[in-house]
Amino acid sequence: MQPPKAVGWSPNHSALRILDQRLLPGVELERDLVSLEDTMDAIRTLAVRGAPAIGVAAAIGLAVALRRDSGGDGTKARHLLTEYAPRLAATRPTAVNLTWAVHRMQQAVEAVRNDDLLAALAREAEAIRSEDVRMCEQIGEHGLAIIPDGARVLTHCNAGALATAGIGTALAPLYAAHARGRALTVYADETRPLRQGARLTAWELVRAGINVSVLPDGAAASLIGQGLVDLVIVGADRITANGDVANKIGTYGVALAAHAHGVPFYVAAPWSTIDVATPTGAHIVIEHRQADELGELPALVPAWNPAFDVTPRALVRGYLTDRGFVDPPFLGDRESV
Amino acid sequence: MQPPKAVGWSPNHSALRILDQRLLPGVELERDLVSLEDTMDAIRTLAVRGAPAIGVAAAIGLAVALRRDSGGDGTKARHLLTEYAPRLAATRPTAVNLTWAVHRMQQAVEAVRNDDLLAALAREAEAIRSEDVRMCEQIGEHGLAIIPDGARVLTHCNAGALATAGIGTALAPLYAAHARGRALTVYADETRPLRQGARLTAWELVRAGINVSVLPDGAAASLIGQGLVDLVIVGADRITANGDVANKIGTYGVALAAHAHGVPFYVAAPWSTIDVATPTGAHIVIEHRQADELGELPALVPAWNPAFDVTPRALVRGYLTDRGFVDPPFLGDRESV
Repeated sequence: MQPPKAVGWSPNHSALRILDQRLLPGVELERDLVSLEDTMDAIRTLAVRGAPAIGVAAAIGLAVALRRDSGGDGTKARHLLTEYAPRLAATRPTAVNLTWAVHRMQQAVEAVRNDDLLAALAREAEAIRSEDVRMCEQIGEHGLAIIPDGARVLTHCNAGALATAGIGTALAPLYAAHARGRALTVYADETRPLRQGARLTAWELVRAGINVSVLPDGAAASLIGQGLVDLVIVGADRITANGDVANKIGTYGVALAAHAHGVPFYVAAPWSTIDVATPTGAHIVIEHRQADELGELPALVPAWNPAFDVTPRALVRGYLTDRGFVDPPFLGDRESV
Repeated sequence: MQPPKAVGWSPNHSALRILDQRLLPGVELERDLVSLEDTMDAIRTLAVRGAPAIGVAAAIGLAVALRRDSGGDGTKARHLLTEYAPRLAATRPTAVNLTWAVHRMQQAVEAVRNDDLLAALAREAEAIRSEDVRMCEQIGEHGLAIIPDGARVLTHCNAGALATAGIGTALAPLYAAHARGRALTVYADETRPLRQGARLTAWELVRAGINVSVLPDGAAASLIGQGLVDLVIVGADRITANGDVANKIGTYGVALAAHAHGVPFYVAAPWSTIDVATPTGAHIVIEHRQADELGELPALVPAWNPAFDVTPRALVRGYLTDRGFVDPPFLGDRESV
């Protein structure tokens, strides 16, 4: 079975179509979104999540909302864009792909006449989507080198098809290896509080016929310590110029355990995730989320619930991107390289 | 408010009285148990949990079940004891206090006449209970040395009043420091899969007026990395002769993170938790539990769900017991020292 399609266009390109990840694994429901509010709500509530998928959703969501809200009037659309772009970009602070995609949409129409503007936005959104699909395939191809037949792989959160418009980032090499007939054993951290590993990674891998087990986040160090893991591969929400990696909370602890046991720890992400403008992880503002995500707590007990942590460069064996394996420091403008 | 009472006698000593921890923090319900099956079921389903509390529950449960099932006939009770003791001891394999308590009950009646047997069992069970209460107080007193005013403390799982017949092991120094007016900030790992940190540790600390927050297990490394923790203190289910520590799954990852950041990691446990007959952690058989404890998983996805992990001696700054701080290797018979 093919990996699921997390984000794309509705058939007539009038809406952003998402697979609502809040309902997985129990219910597989696609939603068509048109208004900016609905797109922002989907991103904010994690109906669509994963840095690349958020970028694609933002681009398509912006294109379809502007088409509808402008009534086809390019001058009005250009005016609305100045209002919609910053609102959309502020929906989730840590995912650099969100601001990156919104910025690309803005740039795409800078030198375009008003009567071409809506078509140009749709073209740019489709370019962002199809580049994402190709990016995933390239990560998969380059990543084959680290996934031998019989590999036992630990991953955290979901950096799979559900996090992109294609076959994922961290999971792309697994899909590529599986397609070549290599046997795999995958361990998916549950990934509290929202259980994206248990609900999403396990769901998409077992659906594709890949052998996967779920473990509580706290068990990862023990799994690694018992010699049951050959390599760790995770995604990234942001990679800073020096190679520090912001990723789902829990990643740092896994990286420490892998390091303590000499197990290679890889980060797989699109090149666009590298934020050369941010020197180190210390400069990243970490989003803190609501206590109710943690489930029932005793009355009057607060939660400490950051969405991300930062894994320092020293713990990362390799950075796998659509351009192959790359090494920090990362210099220059991401869009110009 | 006083710490809760997890395990003890019913008022007329005819039953084992437990606080049913499966229902916390929503419902505070005490149950009186008499049959061996009910005691075993309470231990197996974690209605009563925590190594010291399990030992006390086993002792009282054995005494009351034998009194009832023998109809007061000491000869019959002695015969039943040979059947009940091994069944009870096998209820949970990792907790050394369970077999230790059952063994003490057997030894207590070896040289006793049959018509004194039931009274001797009751006396021994009460001795185990009251020693446990005193043990907790002593751990609290000795532990005051590592809990200065203003201390920020991370703990994992529940090694509190709910895990003992008294004020706990890892939490005993916190209760002792709080009673002396020292300000505390406690962070409780959620402790998946059964959330004993979120449900139990947070509940008993906030009930006692101690400032506590809950974090997902995966966030502990980041909390420590950000310099928000002065020390870690956890309990133990078993400490081997060389100082390796079996404790709730997730402990090892916390210890690795503490070590990486130079934060002292303490283990607090009754002296009886030290199992001198087991040379190292590698000799401990780890109990694996059911997948359904992890909550909803996609169809056909198994769980890797060990109850415990092993933290090696090298990561432990100090061993706090009712006899004060002790250092491995631990030699000789635990009961004879």
